[in-house]
Amino acid sequence: MDSRRDFLQKFSLGLGVTALAGLPAVAHDINPVSNADKQLRVAILGLGGYANIVAKGMKDCKIAKLTGIITGTPSKIPEWKKKYNIEDKNVYSYDNMHEIKNNPDIDLIYVITPNSLHHKHVLMAAAAGKHVICEKPMADNAKQAREMIAACDKAGVKLYIGYRLHFEPHTKELIRMRKAGEFGKVMHVNNYAGFKIGDPKQWRLRKALAGGGAMMDVGVYSLNGARYCTGEEPIWVTAQESKTDKVKFAEVDETVTFQLGSPGGMIANCGCTYNFNHVEGLKLMGEKGWAEMNPAFGYGPIRGNTHLGPINQPDVTHQAYQMDGIAECILDNKPDPNVSGLEGLKDMIVVDAIYESIRKDGKKIFINKA
Amino acid sequence: MDSRRDFLQKFSLGLGVTALAGLPAVAHDINPVSNADKQLRVAILGLGGYANIVAKGMKDCKIAKLTGIITGTPSKIPEWKKKYNIEDKNVYSYDNMHEIKNNPDIDLIYVITPNSLHHKHVLMAAAAGKHVICEKPMADNAKQAREMIAACDKAGVKLYIGYRLHFEPHTKELIRMRKAGEFGKVMHVNNYAGFKIGDPKQWRLRKALAGGGAMMDVGVYSLNGARYCTGEEPIWVTAQESKTDKVKFAEVDETVTFQLGSPGGMIANCGCTYNFNHVEGLKLMGEKGWAEMNPAFGYGPIRGNTHLGPINQPDVTHQAYQMDGIAECILDNKPDPNVSGLEGLKDMIVVDAIYESIRKDGKKIFINKA
Repeated sequence: MDSRRDFLQKFSLGLGVTALAGLPAVAHDINPVSNADKQLRVAILGLGGYANIVAKGMKDCKIAKLTGIITGTPSKIPEWKKKYNIEDKNVYSYDNMHEIKNNPDIDLIYVITPNSLHHKHVLMAAAAGKHVICEKPMADNAKQAREMIAACDKAGVKLYIGYRLHFEPHTKELIRMRKAGEFGKVMHVNNYAGFKIGDPKQWRLRKALAGGGAMMDVGVYSLNGARYCTGEEPIWVTAQESKTDKVKFAEVDETVTFQLGSPGGMIANCGCTYNFNHVEGLKLMGEKGWAEMNPAFGYGPIRGNTHLGPINQPDVTHQAYQMDGIAECILDNKPDPNVSGLEGLKDMIVVDAIYESIRKDGKKIFINKA
Repeated sequence: MDSRRDFLQKFSLGLGVTALAGLPAVAHDINPVSNADKQLRVAILGLGGYANIVAKGMKDCKIAKLTGIITGTPSKIPEWKKKYNIEDKNVYSYDNMHEIKNNPDIDLIYVITPNSLHHKHVLMAAAAGKHVICEKPMADNAKQAREMIAACDKAGVKLYIGYRLHFEPHTKELIRMRKAGEFGKVMHVNNYAGFKIGDPKQWRLRKALAGGGAMMDVGVYSLNGARYCTGEEPIWVTAQESKTDKVKFAEVDETVTFQLGSPGGMIANCGCTYNFNHVEGLKLMGEKGWAEMNPAFGYGPIRGNTHLGPINQPDVTHQAYQMDGIAECILDNKPDPNVSGLEGLKDMIVVDAIYESIRKDGKKIFINKA
C-alpha cells in the first residue's frame, strides 16, 4: 500500500508530507495477520441493517470469518451472539474497543455505522491496531478521508472501502473488457442509482448522521461506476440538485445530477435520487462498442449486456466475495481491486466538488489538476 | 392560432406588442385553403436528403399532396419532377418564389434547408402568402424564431415546425398517458439522441449553415422530448459541452449534456452527440410509473415500454402522418399537437440558454420566469 507510486499519488491527492511525516518508506503492520490457517478474522462495528446483510453474507466466506462485534447498543448483543456464533470475549463496546489491540481473534474491523461516524470509527479502529474496512461513503468529505488514510498509515494498518462491486463478477468483467479495449475509447457514461426512500425519520435523512442525502449514499455508486467505466479521474465537475419534497428532504439532497469531465474530453453524466424508482442503470458508450448494466449497483443479481452479447457471469453473494477478496489482499499481500482508502478519497474529492458546484449554481469546479 | 391565450403566451415569450402591432385580434388567411376537395397542396423548399424522405413519405398521405418544389439547384429539377410528378408551373427558384402567391396549386411551403437558412426562407415563404412548415431546429436562436413568428402572423399564414413525433402513434400514446396521470407526477427525465456523424465536410459541421452542432440537430429531440415528457417549461437550464475531436468539431458542438429544472423542482437530464452510437433513448420516471422509448426519436419504428407493458401502436410513415396531421389542422382549423411556431420558439429559448450556460462554465441560466 505504501509503494513509491502510492506515495506520489497520495501526495498529489493532498495527503501531503505532514500526514505522512515520520513514516517508514514501507509501513509494517503492527499486528500482522498469521497466514498459517489462511483466515481473516473480522469484527463488525455497528450492528444496523447493512451489518446484518454483511454478517449473513459472510456465512458463504471461505477465508474471512466473522468473529467479533463492536456496538453501542447492548440489547443487540444476544441475538448477534446467537445468530453468528460470537464468543463473549470478542464482544466490545465503543468504550473498550481499544482493547481489541490485544485480541488475536480479530484481524480487521469493518465499520458499518452511519456515514458521518465513519471518520471517528475508522480512527478508533486504527488506534486499536487492526486493519479496517469502512463502508461507503468513506466520509463526509475529502478532508476526513485524508485524515482517515493518514491515521491508518500511521497505525500501520490497511484501509479499504466497502466497494463490493469491485469483487462482483459481472462488474469485474465489465472492467476487464474496458481495460482490454473492447469498447474502444470510452465516449460517454450515463449512470443512475436510487430509489424512493421510505421512513422519513431514518438516519439517512438527517444531515448530522448521513452527511448528505442521495448523493452521499446511492450517488457514490453512480460516481464510482463512472470511474470504473472510464478508468480516468475527472478534471472538472458540474452538478445540479432538484428537490420536489422540501419537508422530507429538508436536511439532505433528494435528487442530484452531476457531470464529470475527463482529461480526454468525454463526459460522464450521472444521477441519483432518494425519491423515485425505476432509475438504476449503468451505460457506457465507446468508440467500438457499448455496455449496459441493469441492475448495476444493487446486492444482486447484476445483469449486463454489451455489443458482444450478455455478460455471462455467476451470481454470487456480494458481501462474501468482497470479504474473501479483501482477506486475500491482506493475507497474500495482493494489490486490491481499487477499493483502498485512496479510492475512497478520490470519490470524496469529487463529492466535495459536486456539492460545491451545486452551491455555485452548477458552475464547473476544476479538480485533480495537480 | 391567435386566441387570447396564445396572444398572452406570445407576449410572455417576448414576442411583445411590436411584433403583433396592427394585427387583428384574429388573423385571417390571405390565401384561404379551399376545403372543398379536402386537400393541402405542398411545395418543398430545399431538395436535400431529408426533403427526399419527406417527399417519398408523402406518397402515403391521404390529404396532403406534394405539388411543387423550390430550389436553388436547377440540376435537381428533372429528377424531382419525374419522381414526384411535379408540374412545370409549380417549380420555383428562390428568385421567383414570391410569385407562388398567385399559384392556387400551392397552399403551404415546407422549408427543409440547412438550419441557418430557416429564418430567411420562412420569411420568404410568408411573403409569398402561403402557410409554412419549418423543419427543426426552427432557427439559430430565439430572436430569429420570434421574427419568423411575427412575419407569419403579419402575413396571416400559419407556421408549424417539423416535429413529426407529435404525430407518431407511440409518442402520442406516451403523451396521452402522461396527461392522463398514468405515471403520476413526473419525477425525472433522461433523454439522449445522437449518432456518430460521417462525412467531415457536410454542412451539419459548418457553423454558418448549421447554427450549431449536435445540440441544434439531434439535441432538439432530447429537449422537445423532455418538454412532452413533462408538459412543463423549464425555469432554469444548465449545460456542459465535451469535445474529444477538436478537428472534426472545430466549428460546432460534438456532445452536449443539459439539465432542465422545472417549476415543481424536477430535473430533466439530457444529452446529445454527433460522435458515438448506441445512445438514443427516452426515459420518464414518475411517482406512479415509468416509460422508456428506444428507439425514441428516429424515423421509425419507435418502441416504447411502460410499467403497464409495451406501448402497442401501429408503425407508420412519420412524414405522411405529420403532413396529413398538419393538413387537418389547416383545413379543419384544428388546434395543432404542439408543433406551432410558438413551440419552436420555446425550444429555441432553451437552446439559447444551453449555449449561454456552456459559455458560462455550466452556470444556471434562469428563463421563462415572466
